Amino acid sequence: MPRYRLTIEYDGRPYRGYQAQADLPSVQASIERAVKGFCGQDLRLQAAGRTDTGVHATGQVIHMDLDKDWPPEVVRDALNAHLVPEPISILEAEVAVGDWHARFSAKERRYLYRILNRKSPPALDQGRVWHVKNPLDAEAMHTAAQRLVGHHDFTTFRDMQCQAKSPLKTLDLAAVRREGDYVLLDFASRSFLHRQVRSMTGTLAEVGAGRWTGEDVTAALEARDRKACGPVAPAEGLYLTGVSY
Amino acid sequence: MPRYRLTIEYDGRPYRGYQAQADLPSVQASIERAVKGFCGQDLRLQAAGRTDTGVHATGQVIHMDLDKDWPPEVVRDALNAHLVPEPISILEAEVAVGDWHARFSAKERRYLYRILNRKSPPALDQGRVWHVKNPLDAEAMHTAAQRLVGHHDFTTFRDMQCQAKSPLKTLDLAAVRREGDYVLLDFASRSFLHRQVRSMTGTLAEVGAGRWTGEDVTAALEARDRKACGPVAPAEGLYLTGVSY
Repeated sequence: MPRYRLTIEYDGRPYRGYQAQADLPSVQASIERAVKGFCGQDLRLQAAGRTDTGVHATGQVIHMDLDKDWPPEVVRDALNAHLVPEPISILEAEVAVGDWHARFSAKERRYLYRILNRKSPPALDQGRVWHVKNPLDAEAMHTAAQRLVGHHDFTTFRDMQCQAKSPLKTLDLAAVRREGDYVLLDFASRSFLHRQVRSMTGTLAEVGAGRWTGEDVTAALEARDRKACGPVAPAEGLYLTGVSY
Repeated sequence: MPRYRLTIEYDGRPYRGYQAQADLPSVQASIERAVKGFCGQDLRLQAAGRTDTGVHATGQVIHMDLDKDWPPEVVRDALNAHLVPEPISILEAEVAVGDWHARFSAKERRYLYRILNRKSPPALDQGRVWHVKNPLDAEAMHTAAQRLVGHHDFTTFRDMQCQAKSPLKTLDLAAVRREGDYVLLDFASRSFLHRQVRSMTGTLAEVGAGRWTGEDVTAALEARDRKACGPVAPAEGLYLTGVSY
């Protein structure tokens, strides 16, 4: 029973998140349906990250155990054929070794948050960016972001619905840079709390807009209180870009 | 009666091209409707380029004569508000000087053609790229593209429906480069024939795939015969990126 590791890209807009929920469109349900169409097998996929409604991925990693040995390229191409016309693409398929697990073996998850920072709304990037009209100071955001890096109690930046046992996480990277009209935020951690990236991004945007100082970010973190968080950035700017094992 | 110059971005997918046609959705009709909603005026827009069905723009330039003087930012913001939720964005509005004309004063148009060159289909870039599965040699495409640069009779690369009086054009730039899985083609000319960029791109892709040589491109150009053209690349990868005056 070979285990296949798949790297996938998707546009989160048509889905109620990655994870299958009864009667709601999800990335997981679409891929499981494609697997059924390809080889007739009913299975449950395992994924490195459970992205929310409207969140995109360019490097989500999932696995599945197939009954039969197939060449990985056959699995990739057949699933892509069965996924037409959905905005989900299997970028890579590989045979996994040993007891490798898409979720439990992950050592680092990486997210990108894209802000379009100009007066005019996005046309080509509708649904793929957070549109912020007033100028953001990306350098100030980057400096303030360093206050979040490291091992902390991230209760402030955690959704009330978060089911993680502990709010303690180690944030390995929080980097903010400007590219033309875009402000891009890169985050990396072994794992994130529910809505942690969007909560940190929304808070850093307050710094970028000049409404918060770096000290306000530290105070919010140290408050360990959800009410101390800045506004939560919308789902549409968020991308799961990669997972390391 | 001030003339306003607008720089606009749009996603070409929902439209039957830029130009208004009775009862069909067009970029022009949508913006004219927004103008009517903003100031009640019925007018005809003038544009630098008439993009085809499904072709995108990041730097189309249009003009309109308004009955009243408005600050340009008011025109931009009001039109954007009236355009919601369409994927059309007014990036800039300026007051034009003298008898400047969006179409007739244009000295150079620039187009970008984006090919996604990988086995897996696009997910986030559905409808925004031409998906070519087999590897393309971008350097060979670039070298061959230089054979098209200069003053030539471009009959081979012109749609049968093209209404231009002469097939003689001067191609100022044809540059091909690879960026990861993307092969990007930049073209610049005072003006292009109908489907010229897509005809040149499809032909250069034959070179990239190894089916045509550079000499074949020269022979096709010199044939001055539409039947000598390679396959025409699809609309979805094409972007009007800018106009110089």
